[in-house]
Amino acid sequence: MKKILFILLIINLKSFGQAIEHFEPSSWWVGMKNPKLQVLIHGKEISTFSVNVNYPGVKLLKVNKTENPNYLFVDLTISPNAKAGKVPFRFTKGNQKTEYSLDLKNRKPNSAQREGYSQKDVIYLLTPDRFANGDSQNDNIAGYPDALNRARDYGRHGGDIAGIRKNLSYISDMGFTTIWPMPLEENKMEEASYHGYAITDFYKIDPRYGSNEDYINLVKESKQKGLKFIRDVVLNHCGLNHWWMKDLPSKDWINNEGKFKPTNHQREVIHDPYASKYDMDKMTQGWFVSAMPDMNQRNPFMANYLIQNTIWWIENADLDGLRIDTYPYSDKNFLSVWSKAVMDEYPKFNMVGEEWSTRQAVTAYWQMGQKNKDGYKSYLPTMMDFPLNNALIEGLKENDKEWGKGMLKVYQCLSDDYLYANPNNLMTFADNHDMNRIFTQLNEDKNLLKMGLAVIFTMRGIPQFFYGTEVAMTSPKERNDGLIRADMPGGWEGDKADVFQNKNLNPLQSEMREYVKKLLNWRKTASAIHNGKLVHYSPEDGIYTYFRFNENEKYWIILNKNEEQISLNTQKYKEHLPEKAKFYDVLENQSLENQISIPGKGFRILKVD
Amino acid sequence: MKKILFILLIINLKSFGQAIEHFEPSSWWVGMKNPKLQVLIHGKEISTFSVNVNYPGVKLLKVNKTENPNYLFVDLTISPNAKAGKVPFRFTKGNQKTEYSLDLKNRKPNSAQREGYSQKDVIYLLTPDRFANGDSQNDNIAGYPDALNRARDYGRHGGDIAGIRKNLSYISDMGFTTIWPMPLEENKMEEASYHGYAITDFYKIDPRYGSNEDYINLVKESKQKGLKFIRDVVLNHCGLNHWWMKDLPSKDWINNEGKFKPTNHQREVIHDPYASKYDMDKMTQGWFVSAMPDMNQRNPFMANYLIQNTIWWIENADLDGLRIDTYPYSDKNFLSVWSKAVMDEYPKFNMVGEEWSTRQAVTAYWQMGQKNKDGYKSYLPTMMDFPLNNALIEGLKENDKEWGKGMLKVYQCLSDDYLYANPNNLMTFADNHDMNRIFTQLNEDKNLLKMGLAVIFTMRGIPQFFYGTEVAMTSPKERNDGLIRADMPGGWEGDKADVFQNKNLNPLQSEMREYVKKLLNWRKTASAIHNGKLVHYSPEDGIYTYFRFNENEKYWIILNKNEEQISLNTQKYKEHLPEKAKFYDVLENQSLENQISIPGKGFRILKVD
Repeated sequence: MKKILFILLIINLKSFGQAIEHFEPSSWWVGMKNPKLQVLIHGKEISTFSVNVNYPGVKLLKVNKTENPNYLFVDLTISPNAKAGKVPFRFTKGNQKTEYSLDLKNRKPNSAQREGYSQKDVIYLLTPDRFANGDSQNDNIAGYPDALNRARDYGRHGGDIAGIRKNLSYISDMGFTTIWPMPLEENKMEEASYHGYAITDFYKIDPRYGSNEDYINLVKESKQKGLKFIRDVVLNHCGLNHWWMKDLPSKDWINNEGKFKPTNHQREVIHDPYASKYDMDKMTQGWFVSAMPDMNQRNPFMANYLIQNTIWWIENADLDGLRIDTYPYSDKNFLSVWSKAVMDEYPKFNMVGEEWSTRQAVTAYWQMGQKNKDGYKSYLPTMMDFPLNNALIEGLKENDKEWGKGMLKVYQCLSDDYLYANPNNLMTFADNHDMNRIFTQLNEDKNLLKMGLAVIFTMRGIPQFFYGTEVAMTSPKERNDGLIRADMPGGWEGDKADVFQNKNLNPLQSEMREYVKKLLNWRKTASAIHNGKLVHYSPEDGIYTYFRFNENEKYWIILNKNEEQISLNTQKYKEHLPEKAKFYDVLENQSLENQISIPGKGFRILKVD
Repeated sequence: MKKILFILLIINLKSFGQAIEHFEPSSWWVGMKNPKLQVLIHGKEISTFSVNVNYPGVKLLKVNKTENPNYLFVDLTISPNAKAGKVPFRFTKGNQKTEYSLDLKNRKPNSAQREGYSQKDVIYLLTPDRFANGDSQNDNIAGYPDALNRARDYGRHGGDIAGIRKNLSYISDMGFTTIWPMPLEENKMEEASYHGYAITDFYKIDPRYGSNEDYINLVKESKQKGLKFIRDVVLNHCGLNHWWMKDLPSKDWINNEGKFKPTNHQREVIHDPYASKYDMDKMTQGWFVSAMPDMNQRNPFMANYLIQNTIWWIENADLDGLRIDTYPYSDKNFLSVWSKAVMDEYPKFNMVGEEWSTRQAVTAYWQMGQKNKDGYKSYLPTMMDFPLNNALIEGLKENDKEWGKGMLKVYQCLSDDYLYANPNNLMTFADNHDMNRIFTQLNEDKNLLKMGLAVIFTMRGIPQFFYGTEVAMTSPKERNDGLIRADMPGGWEGDKADVFQNKNLNPLQSEMREYVKKLLNWRKTASAIHNGKLVHYSPEDGIYTYFRFNENEKYWIILNKNEEQISLNTQKYKEHLPEKAKFYDVLENQSLENQISIPGKGFRILKVD
């Protein structure tokens, strides 16, 4: 971004001694539902200049100043009749003059009507630094610390946008329909910059991944492969080396006056009718970690900045959805305004919030349509389904023969779906980038892993899958994020095993890869999984079973937690079976005669006719 | 009841060869909000008789017959202008004639406006058979099996109404304001009849406890001592020896055609959006145990019978409240109608439902005012707070220094109160008659017991206390209901230790009795506990603390889970403290100077001025 700005400064603008260091956003669009725009302008003593904007259809509403003379926040309205072009901002102070222009563009056709991800989709979550190194030229970039070091768990390993672009066909062929890379924006941090959540420039792709243009092309090519694209958004914090940290617009730009004070992680305060102000403030104004200053969204300029940044990326890169990091840690009123602003612009869009609680009471509060007792309104369509994730792992691991244990956990968790405004809009997952690998959590039991994935891919909700789990990746028993986000075999030159090319994989890896591919490609065809109803039966004798059905088709998923094979008496399920039901196992591609047998620690997905 | 009926038959009625075996209810009132009444009449071939009712203001609406000719269900309306008196029912068939009269009474003044229990109250739950034997004459009654046998855990021990009446002053002096005895209705069962939940006549007090008149006098005397009175209601099942089991009005009077088929106890089906009909039917139509036939409230005559029986006891015995056993096991539509019928008659009444789930998602569904997604309406003002009970016990036992453990459980549980329509109307408790004694659950740690009770008596909600816990009663580690409901020392002649007279108690018993008495008698005076707001602070360094306050007073409860004494820095709590706050310890009756110290594993209840 700085490089681009610098070029722009030289080519487009006449600068007379006054440098505009930041002008954000640098572009915008004609025809947004909200015609207003607030441009942040950062430059030495810029607030002592007068500002003039003269462009047909663009009206300067107000020039806002803060306590720091190096900032201006300029309010504009953009008429729907305005023409695309360079909108000149003229700054004058006595003899001094500076110009800078906003790039006003036309929107893509149907931009506002873009459709977000849904239950039809399966989302592939990947860690860009660890997925594939497609361009070794950008492994190190001058001026960027935290140089390439594959030997370090938390070091940079060199994965990049080129690596993702190279393997889009793999992702698509496997049956995934959407990709969600962890944040790709600049993380100019001294260490652990590989994870992406310490953003130091919200408008710039980290050059070690590629350029903004590379990013836009990645999205475009993903679409060509039939893949939707999700941006990982961080609203709560920035990286400590964010450019503004050296010259804050105001003392209250960052919470706790820019000084580290930890959050209490007590997300209950959000809905707690008895919360103390002390806890509430500590939760949303405390910092996540000392390297990530907590942004104060109660500052209206900050709020506008974040809203516009979100919309800018959607419009600019043609995104299909968002995932929002550490959702409840931001100011809750801001989150209401932010989510409404996005959904107002893109009513069919989707975005998912991370609220890592295993209790629906905590997660349900945040979903769009929820009628909260305190009147709080959220416009976030989807929440991460941590409650089901937790129930599934416990349910798989536990012995179903013990009272209250086993798949009963899954059954009970799902029954609480009535707490949600829209349980179909929950994002389900077996594991993700912040927890031990599912295979490790299941004590490397292949049968349980398959069963768990079968549940995720046939249950209500929008499944998310973490890269590497298709080859049963493991992680140390003690959580280590740097090792959870391990390098994908085949993503680096010289890798012997190659997941992408399906070469030199061990038998377990091959079997799992094949299994996931088969399951997902079947799922693509299964409309009852995309939009069907769910009816389940409370676990009995180690069997948990459910139906998914719509007007056109019906599937019956039967899970057997017993060590031994069982034969199912179908009588119990007659309310959901036609008189002379026919069963077809969709993974084994075979019809079943009268007797339905389920292997020990196994399952079946049956099409019922 | 049968005895009374028999006398009535001889004295009041002329019977010509036709015996009316049951006529229920035998009395009713003028001026009920619902003017309708449905009388169950049971007698050989009674449905072959024609019925005539001739009484000013009483109109016979309809005579209903069932498949069993021995039953009639006679619908009446009773005008608000009717006069009290005997309403004659004349049955004729050819030459045969029989008469029976309904006793029509005037209501007590303000009967409809009676006030239920509330947060002002503390409820004393007792097991009548195990509390005190006030009359050894009724220990065994001719014709009743399950004779007195104090040596057996599940045998009858001889406690009775006379025993309760003798000790009302004790209960009141201790500071309790309400009593809730387990059911006192006839349980003419071969064994385990002591618990009272296998009712064999819904209109008759078990003679081993006393007569209906004794019961009415018990309630009257309770009121004279300032004690409210709660009846324990069983809507779901009766005892296998209920009189109607030998001659059911219809096949569908009892679920599963009168044959034992167990419930699945899967209460989630009630709100589960994905429940199968199989599970739903099994839950509400399955029997609780084989000795307790499951009543079919979908049968409209059964539904009316139960509604009228409830109202009959309230009006007849002048009750202040109800507790409803195994609430969700009854038909849910019936429960809506039943609870509405009761609250329509007594709008300020209170009744509490037992839903033994530790998850608010399950309990909250049933509370009056809850806006359920499926449109289900309940009119039950209060639910048992099993979630808090569970959180409190875990929270007390666990080490607060471990992540996610200790009093954090209580804090999180309370924060979920937003799921309830009215969290103040939850009934809180440390233990009850169905779980191990709290002292046992807390591994006989006296300090934790005191802390737990302090929470129950200062927290939002309506506290319930289980008899015997005031002297730290224990129970075997392995649940044994017969031993949980142990004999109260002092309740039996020859008992050396006597809780009631405060004699020969061991030091622990004396200390606990004194502690509970002090705490409760203070609570009576503490309006902020009765109606105040609650604000709590998330646990930190082993300290969990909360304020209760209204316009007039403020209390600060501080719990210290550390082994060591701590000194509290009050700065953190300044939002709730006046500038120069004064603190007064209400249990130690002393003012605290600047420094607030809390003993290790201890607590303080401070009045803040």
